Amino acid sequence: MDNKLRKLLTIIPDTDRVITGDSIEEVYKSDVLGRLKGTVWAVVRTVSTNEVSGVLSFAFENDIPVTPRGAGTNLVGSTVPLSGGIVLDLTAMNKILELDKETFTATVEPGVVLQDFQEYVEKEGFFYPPDPGEKTATIGGNISTNAGGMRAVKYGVTRDYVMGLEIVLADGRVLTVGSKNIKDSSGLSLKNLIIGSEGTLAVITKCILKVIPKPQSSVSVLVPFNSLDKGIESVQHIINQNANPTAIEFVERKVIKLGEEFLQLSFPYPQAKAYLILTFDGYEEEIERNIRRIEETVRKHGALEFLRLTDKETAANVWRIRGALVKAVEAVSEQEPVDIVVPINKTAEFVEFVNKLSEKTNMQMISFGHAGDGNVHLCVLRGNRSESQWEDERKENMDKIYTKAYQLGGLTSGEHGIGISKKRYYLKETDKTNIDVMNAIKNSLDSKHILNDHKVYML
Amino acid sequence: MDNKLRKLLTIIPDTDRVITGDSIEEVYKSDVLGRLKGTVWAVVRTVSTNEVSGVLSFAFENDIPVTPRGAGTNLVGSTVPLSGGIVLDLTAMNKILELDKETFTATVEPGVVLQDFQEYVEKEGFFYPPDPGEKTATIGGNISTNAGGMRAVKYGVTRDYVMGLEIVLADGRVLTVGSKNIKDSSGLSLKNLIIGSEGTLAVITKCILKVIPKPQSSVSVLVPFNSLDKGIESVQHIINQNANPTAIEFVERKVIKLGEEFLQLSFPYPQAKAYLILTFDGYEEEIERNIRRIEETVRKHGALEFLRLTDKETAANVWRIRGALVKAVEAVSEQEPVDIVVPINKTAEFVEFVNKLSEKTNMQMISFGHAGDGNVHLCVLRGNRSESQWEDERKENMDKIYTKAYQLGGLTSGEHGIGISKKRYYLKETDKTNIDVMNAIKNSLDSKHILNDHKVYML
Repeated sequence: MDNKLRKLLTIIPDTDRVITGDSIEEVYKSDVLGRLKGTVWAVVRTVSTNEVSGVLSFAFENDIPVTPRGAGTNLVGSTVPLSGGIVLDLTAMNKILELDKETFTATVEPGVVLQDFQEYVEKEGFFYPPDPGEKTATIGGNISTNAGGMRAVKYGVTRDYVMGLEIVLADGRVLTVGSKNIKDSSGLSLKNLIIGSEGTLAVITKCILKVIPKPQSSVSVLVPFNSLDKGIESVQHIINQNANPTAIEFVERKVIKLGEEFLQLSFPYPQAKAYLILTFDGYEEEIERNIRRIEETVRKHGALEFLRLTDKETAANVWRIRGALVKAVEAVSEQEPVDIVVPINKTAEFVEFVNKLSEKTNMQMISFGHAGDGNVHLCVLRGNRSESQWEDERKENMDKIYTKAYQLGGLTSGEHGIGISKKRYYLKETDKTNIDVMNAIKNSLDSKHILNDHKVYML
Repeated sequence: MDNKLRKLLTIIPDTDRVITGDSIEEVYKSDVLGRLKGTVWAVVRTVSTNEVSGVLSFAFENDIPVTPRGAGTNLVGSTVPLSGGIVLDLTAMNKILELDKETFTATVEPGVVLQDFQEYVEKEGFFYPPDPGEKTATIGGNISTNAGGMRAVKYGVTRDYVMGLEIVLADGRVLTVGSKNIKDSSGLSLKNLIIGSEGTLAVITKCILKVIPKPQSSVSVLVPFNSLDKGIESVQHIINQNANPTAIEFVERKVIKLGEEFLQLSFPYPQAKAYLILTFDGYEEEIERNIRRIEETVRKHGALEFLRLTDKETAANVWRIRGALVKAVEAVSEQEPVDIVVPINKTAEFVEFVNKLSEKTNMQMISFGHAGDGNVHLCVLRGNRSESQWEDERKENMDKIYTKAYQLGGLTSGEHGIGISKKRYYLKETDKTNIDVMNAIKNSLDSKHILNDHKVYML
């Protein structure tokens, strides 16, 4: 056994929590897509902040790269151990430590799975609004990417529900940033610097999250349109109504068709070209009044119908199909997932651009997503292209798509993060000064670039 | 004329916007309290980003300290030019550049006054929720301190309404952080690092702010209690109702009495010991239902009465008295303003502690504030103490008060910021690692410590 391994085993006393050599599972070398692979010297499964701190200070002293990892559900290569070294697996730190009903906060370890956490607080009469599509992700991962999801229209994103964090810096120093206090004008907001930093600045070891009282009821509505344009145009009018929808999703008919075929289910009002799906939550009478207000508005602005999904089976089918779109696409072909965000009034123009590019280049591109916040999910399909064709044509098209998004005032990622796979586009479109400042901050907190080196903004 | 002044005048061509020597008004040497005073070489009134950038790169090259300044309404010495040099007056950059109704954003220069901005967007049918007590502050100042205010219970604080910023770094580099996009998982959140940084990292030259549709109606309610304890205890139950109050203020009867005497107005239900004042906004029927829900709840939890302030004069008096409390206190004596924040369930314990300390030390301490977010405004009164007595006793008592707040999980400042005058308490109670990290970031962005040196977290 080499010296470094011997030292590591003094920090992590259980040998089954330090895995090396051939015992390392393939899954630790990549993210959920498995397209990019790195190398691993040791997988370390920590169970406490103390251990995380020990591992990091050991790694820092010995110049060993560290890749922190939750459930590994990310789509952009954040968990790929590009430089080898240690993969720090935090999934065993999965305890819900406290639900503080008096301050409306929950304190959890970073390895708690989103779905488990949501279920737990709902059983207790509370509600954790952030709701990214991937429910098996960990809370730590959600915070590292500032995950979003559908309910952001009413409730905001993960950032808005992180009250505090315990973190470990690259050199092993432990600190708490944020608190259970609602207001904070006390020094730099280190908490907000860590949220969304994709494991490049620190490892999260504890999370204080905000919860709210559970809404009494929830209702969905389907609004078909003759064109996507008409649908997205009406989003402005919907927001103007102050009717507080929880989610405003858009999807084109041609995309729904893939989902119908995949699940062998049928979606209401198939004669439409595009749909908005809205949800509302709160007290029943409040929902009812808000829905009536929205019905009046969208009927004035081109809605073909206004379908309350009160029938349970119909509602379930609509959400099942909406939820299965990515899988439906992947059943047809390998795909490049994109989560570009544009200002809400540019969504239609962006989707139209993508549709035209798709036609022109003969590369299938499926778009749907969060109309209430301009967050467009794009699946760019490989089809039957060869590896090299796919590589070249994809890059060429993606360059065009990202350039267009930035021309419209958009950003590379609304919720997935940058990782490795979007870095090319992110660096190309982001002002050099911004990148320089990010690197200066990185250097000031992790001078040896131990943590997630070469990712996101790193040059 | 010396060389430096000559150089400065090439950057700022209008001589009346560069003020030196005896022409410098006293106001530029301090904050609104005027207790701490610095020295000034030159006051520079910039009118463009380009000028701000020019002044900063000139100052950086020549090691000249710079103190950025808006309306100077801050209470903690942030605008005191401690190290001399340049006071950068941004009040002439006061244009509202755009109201983008399609993205629900407004773009303004940093010198726009809060009240002017609120009035402008309301005239246009929109609403800017952050509502700190001081309406003559500038938006740039609000962002620099992450100003809060009453409406934070429902709407959040200034941070939640900053979509993007144009900033100038200490060495003159200009960059934009954030955007008009609602979601953002694209790199480090530099925007959030700048918000609340009290001018220590950059100078804000443009602000993209979120606005929302204007609520249709607003109603206030006064709820008297037999004790402050009872009142604050009921806040938990109020929040549990999902009734979405805009503000939940608390105030003790003895404090109201000062306001009554000062304004020669009377406050309803004088036989109470403490009050909650709640506001609700939204659609009338929604407000009505929420108010009924809260009435039922608070009557179950010790409310002596439930007074809807539907009579315009009564409502106006209640808010006039609440709004005049600080002035009423200052009419009696010099005071030390405190804006400690504690977790909401600790508010009563904290106020009780202060009341007891006040009795024991015979130093009058008046508390009131934002019960919905644990943000306690404390006025500690000098009374007829001599300068040295006041200095010694105040420090001794303040040490005790801040220590107690931190024991309860609280923070030094909920909305005023740290500046110079709270630095002593902030550094004492904050973990050294946090302070070290803040200083590392400062050094990485402003290696010469040109901007607001020696303030907030700086050692």
